[in-house]
Amino acid sequence: MTGPGSSCGACKFLRRKCTSECVFAPYFSYDQAATHFLAVHKVFGASNVSKLLLHLPVQSRSDAAITISYEALARMRDPIYGCVAHIFALQQQIASLQEEIEILGHQMANLTVGIASHGSSQTTSNPTVRYRFARFKMPSTCNIIRIYQLRK
Amino acid sequence: MTGPGSSCGACKFLRRKCTSECVFAPYFSYDQAATHFLAVHKVFGASNVSKLLLHLPVQSRSDAAITISYEALARMRDPIYGCVAHIFALQQQIASLQEEIEILGHQMANLTVGIASHGSSQTTSNPTVRYRFARFKMPSTCNIIRIYQLRK
Repeated sequence: MTGPGSSCGACKFLRRKCTSECVFAPYFSYDQAATHFLAVHKVFGASNVSKLLLHLPVQSRSDAAITISYEALARMRDPIYGCVAHIFALQQQIASLQEEIEILGHQMANLTVGIASHGSSQTTSNPTVRYRFARFKMPSTCNIIRIYQLRK
Repeated sequence: MTGPGSSCGACKFLRRKCTSECVFAPYFSYDQAATHFLAVHKVFGASNVSKLLLHLPVQSRSDAAITISYEALARMRDPIYGCVAHIFALQQQIASLQEEIEILGHQMANLTVGIASHGSSQTTSNPTVRYRFARFKMPSTCNIIRIYQLRK
């Protein structure tokens, strides 16, 4: 509840009286909150989200409400892939960047060899040694591809 | 329903008879399906997922079931951020890779200038020109950061 007589976006959507005990009010009292809550309710169900928030420490609920809204809006836009489409896009972007880095690494190595063969003073400074390859591990729980492989 | 007398993971979890019309059976009939469906039911609710699947063309339902299971399992593991934690991790990884590429670009430019100042024949080949910077746009719907900024 944001003030006397005003309901939070969740209670506006659910057409109910917003009380001071409303679990949604602190996180759904902004412009478009009712529209966002429509998505949250349609995708997750108000009751499931209420339970989830109530099981979290108060200081974590805002982040949970934001990420739930985000997932719900993504699923409304893309009912097949939801926000997993973003994960795929980001994974592809990472693969492309890593490929670019590999190409750059080879180009620098060739350049260094070229300098060495010309007896330049630059040979004392090898950029391929200075350069640390950006090899990251994917998050361990980010195993959507593995799930696909197991089930297809 | 996978065969006479056998129930799909969803119906096993929901303790109901699995019929040939079961909307879940084609997508929840594998090892651990009942465990995965527990997460799906707890996070999204069986009824919401059933509605979502029934609104999709049959050929898209398998992908939807997989991504919904993935989101549900991620939310069970991390009730605050769910699979959005993976999106954050991937975004950070991309930022680091882009930084590495920028550093490499500068190193190559310096190297090329060094070669030119030594009058080497290598100056005809400029690797910074050959190299295409990997600048990608984030997916347009991937606006979690913007949502954060609006609401914090």
